This record gives sequence, C-alpha cells and structure tokens, in this order.
Amino acid sequence: MISYETSQNMISLLPVGALRSERVFLSAALGRVLAQDIVAQEDYPTHPTSAMDGYAVVHTDFAQHKALGILGDNPAGADEVAQVESGICIKTFTGSLMPLGSDTLIPIENVTVKEGVIQIDKPVPFGFAVRPVGENYRKDEVLISRGTTLGFAEIGVLAGINHVMVSVAQRPRVSVIATGSELLDIGENARNVGQIRSSNSYTLQALVEQLGGECVQMGIVGDDKGAIMERFDEALRSSDIVVSSGGVSVGDYDFVKHIVPKLGAEVIFKGVNIKPGQHVMVAQRGSKFIVALPGFAYSSTVTFILYVAPLLARMMGRENVYEPIEATLKVPFAKRSNKSEFTACNLHFEDGRYWVDFEGKKVGSSAILTNLLGNAALMICGEDDGDLEAGTLVRVIKL
Amino acid sequence: MISYETSQNMISLLPVGALRSERVFLSAALGRVLAQDIVAQEDYPTHPTSAMDGYAVVHTDFAQHKALGILGDNPAGADEVAQVESGICIKTFTGSLMPLGSDTLIPIENVTVKEGVIQIDKPVPFGFAVRPVGENYRKDEVLISRGTTLGFAEIGVLAGINHVMVSVAQRPRVSVIATGSELLDIGENARNVGQIRSSNSYTLQALVEQLGGECVQMGIVGDDKGAIMERFDEALRSSDIVVSSGGVSVGDYDFVKHIVPKLGAEVIFKGVNIKPGQHVMVAQRGSKFIVALPGFAYSSTVTFILYVAPLLARMMGRENVYEPIEATLKVPFAKRSNKSEFTACNLHFEDGRYWVDFEGKKVGSSAILTNLLGNAALMICGEDDGDLEAGTLVRVIKL
Repeated sequence: MISYETSQNMISLLPVGALRSERVFLSAALGRVLAQDIVAQEDYPTHPTSAMDGYAVVHTDFAQHKALGILGDNPAGADEVAQVESGICIKTFTGSLMPLGSDTLIPIENVTVKEGVIQIDKPVPFGFAVRPVGENYRKDEVLISRGTTLGFAEIGVLAGINHVMVSVAQRPRVSVIATGSELLDIGENARNVGQIRSSNSYTLQALVEQLGGECVQMGIVGDDKGAIMERFDEALRSSDIVVSSGGVSVGDYDFVKHIVPKLGAEVIFKGVNIKPGQHVMVAQRGSKFIVALPGFAYSSTVTFILYVAPLLARMMGRENVYEPIEATLKVPFAKRSNKSEFTACNLHFEDGRYWVDFEGKKVGSSAILTNLLGNAALMICGEDDGDLEAGTLVRVIKL
Repeated sequence: MISYETSQNMISLLPVGALRSERVFLSAALGRVLAQDIVAQEDYPTHPTSAMDGYAVVHTDFAQHKALGILGDNPAGADEVAQVESGICIKTFTGSLMPLGSDTLIPIENVTVKEGVIQIDKPVPFGFAVRPVGENYRKDEVLISRGTTLGFAEIGVLAGINHVMVSVAQRPRVSVIATGSELLDIGENARNVGQIRSSNSYTLQALVEQLGGECVQMGIVGDDKGAIMERFDEALRSSDIVVSSGGVSVGDYDFVKHIVPKLGAEVIFKGVNIKPGQHVMVAQRGSKFIVALPGFAYSSTVTFILYVAPLLARMMGRENVYEPIEATLKVPFAKRSNKSEFTACNLHFEDGRYWVDFEGKKVGSSAILTNLLGNAALMICGEDDGDLEAGTLVRVIKL
C-alpha cells in the first residue's frame, strides 16, 4: 500500500489534457471557471468624471472670484459641449463627464446658489471629486485571470465592459455508479430487511455538481460481473471520469477491482494507507479516469473528496477547493491506527482561529454518513502521528 | 443619520412573515434551505449488520472449538434464514445482516479455510465488526434541522432514508432595478461618451442568485419620475423585495428617494453613517420591502450585502452568510472619515488565522468594483475607530 502523500502526488501528476472551454452567456456564467484572461480594452473611466453632485469649476477661480455664473446643467449621460471658463461654472452630477475646461468639482453642500450665480462658502482642493482617467483600471490591465471562479463581482465587472459571451471551462462529465446487490434505490420498495437504501449515488452526484462537474447518474448495479462490466463500459463512453462505489474490498462479491483492469484501464494505484477508504483504486484509460471508491457511505464520500475533487479541479484549470487549513484541537484525540486518518469533526471559527472538536460525532464503522452533517470537516492525522493533545495544531479539510 | 449598528438592529427587527415552503424533488434540493426538521423514523441499522467480509460466529466458540464448519454463504442484501449455532459459522459479507444466533464477525484475514471448515488463526473480541442496531442513528433523532442549507451530506442522508420530496424554503423573489439616464445596458450601442455601461443590474442579480433568491431583472430606467414610479410599482407587484440602485443622493435627478414614499411605502430609515453608501434607504409596504441602494458600483454592492442579504436570509429561515469574522491587520490602515467604513481588502488564511492587507486595492471613489475581485473581503471600521496599526484585530466580512 502506498502512503497518502504518494497517492496525492500521483493524482497531481495524472495528465488531464488541455483545458476544454466553451462560450456561455453572462447570465449562465455565475459559478463557472473562467477559461480566458479578461483584459481591459481601454482606460476606465475614459474621461474625467464627476464623483458627486456639484459645480464644475476652474480651481484658480477660488482665489479670483467670490461668485461664479452658472452656465447650465450637465446631467449624467449627457453629451455636454459647453465649456467652463474663468468666472463661470456648470452644474454637474454624479457620473457626468467633467465639462471641458473644468478641473475641480465643488459639491452642492459647499456653495450658496442665488439668481444664477454660486457663492463659494467652503473651497475644496484642486481636482476634488473628479474621478481621473483610469481610476478603475488601465488599458491592457488583466482584470480577471483564467482559472477564477466567477462570483458576483466578476459578473459585474464583465457586464461593465460589455463582455456578454464568456469563455469558461467545460464542465467535466462524471458518471456515478453504485455497486452492490444489497442496494435499494430511493423510491423502490424493499423485498427483504437485508436490503440497504443507497445514499452513495446521491451524495456523489451532489459533490460532482457542487464542484462544477456534470453528473451522469448511472444508478445501481448488482454484484454481477457481466452487468458491472457493461455499466462501466457505458460510463467510460459517456464521461471523463467514472466514479463507482463498492466492490473493491476482499469479499467474494467484490468484482469491481477485477473488472477495472479488464476494461483496458491501467491501474495507477490500488490501496492507500488511509482510514477510511484503504481499498480505493484509481485507473486510467486513454484520457479518461476511473476512481473506484469503497462502498461504505463515509468512506466513499471521504475518498471522493481526496481523489476525485482534485482531478475535477485540474480538468477545469482551477484550484482544488478542499485544500487543508490549520486548526486547533479543542480536546484530546486518540488515534486508532497507523494509517493516515480522516476523522469527521466540527469546525468552529472563534477568537480569530478555527477550532476542532468531536461533539455529537459517533465513533463506529465507516458507514456513518451523518457524521458529515452540519459544520463538518475532516481532521487529518498523519501515519506517524500518535494520540494528540488538546491545543495541537492540526490540518483540516473544510467541507 | 442613524449609526450602522442601529440600522442593523432595525433590519433584524423587520417583520418578514412566516416561512413559506414548497416541496421539491431531492434532485433539485442541493443548496436549498430545509423548511422542516428531518427526523429518523427508525433505528439505523435496523438489525445487527456486518462491517467486514468474514464469518459470523458465536464468540464463545473461540474457547471451545479449534475449527468451525461453514454452513453457507450470506451475501449482502440476502434474506438469510440459516442460523449460527455452536460449532458452525456462516460466511458473511460487508453490509449483510448478521445471521440469527451469531454475535461476532471474524474477518477473512484471521482464518484459514480448508474443506468446508475454518480454523481460527487470530481470534477477535466479542461483537467484532458487527454494526449494532442504531449505530448511525436512533428513531426520533433529529437528523437535519430546519434552516440547514442542504449540502452533499444532507442529500445523501435524505436519500438514505428514502426522503424523495423535500420541504424547503421558497426562494424569495427580488426585483432589481438600475436607475440613471447615463446607463447603457450590456449589448447596447453607446450614443455618446458620457454614457456608462451598467454593472449594478448584473452584480446584484448574481448576489440574489448566490444567496438563494430568485431575481426578477427589471433592467434600467432613466431619471424620469413617471417611469421610475411605474417600474417600482410593477416590481412591488412582482416580488418580495425591490432593490434599486441610484437616485438616492442630493442631486436634482435623484428621484428614487422622493418616489418611494409616494408608493405608499413606510420609510424605515434613510441615511446611515457608513462609507460607502450613506444615502441607502429601506422602506416597507405591507409584507414587501424596498431597499434603495446608491448608484456607484462599489456602494451598491456593499449596501446590498449589509441590508439585503440579511433580509433574504431571514425570509428563508437561515443564518446570514455575511456575518463578520475576526482577522489581523498585516499593515497599518488610515481611516478616512468618522463613519463606519467598509473597505475592500484581501483576506488570506495563513498560520492558523486570517490576515488582511490592501495590496492591489485602489483608493478612490466608490465606483471601483474591481476592488471586490479575487479573495476580496470587507474590513469593518467602527465610527469611533481612528487609524489602525498593523497587528490590530479587525472584523471582516468574507465575500
């Protein structure tokens, strides 16, 4: 069995191919990953612009005139042609271009208006309330870099430069297959008490969608070699990554581990010294990947996060969203094995740092998916770690 | 002008009405806010279940027998009727119910199999690898609470209990109106250089969608009293919250502030001692709200986060996603006013805490939306704060 660190290195070295992009309308771009740099085509603002409501003036007039004649009105969006000269001003509003000849805006609050004339009650410095050319950005500045996930600010900036069609990374297609003759799909009636309602299909689909992939839901396939072979083959033809759960352990009905090599896939690794999920298997066929996860709900979810999430991120040219962060143990922790352990914990931010505890978390088999509800996170213990004292700095994957 | 703290209290006291829920398919529930408690209908597992592949035995046999006869095979999902008695075992797989009479599972790795008989090479303690009834949860346990945003683990748990139709909070409808005669919509050709490409409509729409609301995009309306009045009236008939940008300052064309009261709405507050966005206005008509934001891109975005986001959260019965957290200033900060200031900053997590700096952030007017790109956050300075030294603990809103 390889170590967790080795397995992560191997995942980071898998050749995911060149980025595949598509153009989408801005309305569909929220949450997508940018596939191009967004570069400013011009300085912005393109002209000096008023930042307040007031009067556009020549600053030297403050010393020379007690009052200035109002030449007219320059509402925002107008194509003002009048020019400010010494002794006169033009009423100018937030967002209006500064009239030619003016260099300073004196706010409404700083003047008294009487019979077409303003008196300066409180002068302002040269250039006051004038947004200079390029205040926002300069021509050729990279505004948003390739690989950025588009949030509300990115959408607004794209709209502001009239960028309607956006080049984004295509969503990788991920097929999800749950294997096991004991599995019962949602909505299906049980035939006997030994059957288990499948949750993996839906947990993994939700993960794929949250991470920006497109899920091909392949449902459940029983422990039958031919049926598994067929379903995997269909999945490989349908998607970039095939993710399965179950069938990788040492039981007589664990067929997945035998079938993957028969599909013509090269096994990258099988078995990692981790808990949960030691039987996880990663394989490659051409440009496609198979990640065969264990069947228990907690194990399959954790191993998806460790092995599928970084692959998906790399395919889209973005950073992995599940990079570990540092937190402080609030209580002692008893390590149970000599493996790298991923333990469900609560993560709270308090007094400027993250704290880890295990209140309400059940110790038991790897079947307990409910441990991942709420503010759950995964605490990482290394192979060589022993029991940990309260106060220890640990690495945690925020979910 | 009221203080920021007072304005937040007033927002938190606005009567948002009883929660409105709807039932959606599990496939559409990811990211929605749960409107009911999810309660376990039975203990789970319902029966003792095998956690590994091995042989179901009676534990006392370890002391009495060197070898045990294999009665048969109990694959997962089977309706096993055979019974384990002293001297015999049943081969049992991960996920199978434990056969009647058995109490312990001895793993495959711990035995030698020969001619229908197992020899115990390495005994295990009583109850080994048996998942007890209720290991995951007990009947009547609240598995997921009302108000939880449904993530992958919640979706998996719901699938696991066959909960196909989920009661979630309805998405509040939010109309977005950008006002200003200078505004040019995306895709529209400019008629003169004084026109400004509108970004507010799309920044605010993206925020509404990210926060789980449904956006009614009302586009741009010029500085015309009648047209503004009509558009606001249509918006009030169409949605729960009307959000507008522009028209609330002191200029001659700032009509929104005059029109809102004429729509029969009660003004909750107008003007808050904050920077940016001091002219923000919140009003109520019946069960509906109007939040009139300033027109500058940075100001409207910040005031949306401060005043619309918490209202939206309350309408869905969830926590506000923009609650401030603590971070440490990496560089000194010069405060510019005696207002509560919300300054765009970079937020990095390093050495177990969040750090704030302003690298690449432009100081200028409130028009600079690009300051919110990347890992941006809003640093909060109180009215009474002065200049801050590096190392100061500050409150920050993560975006």
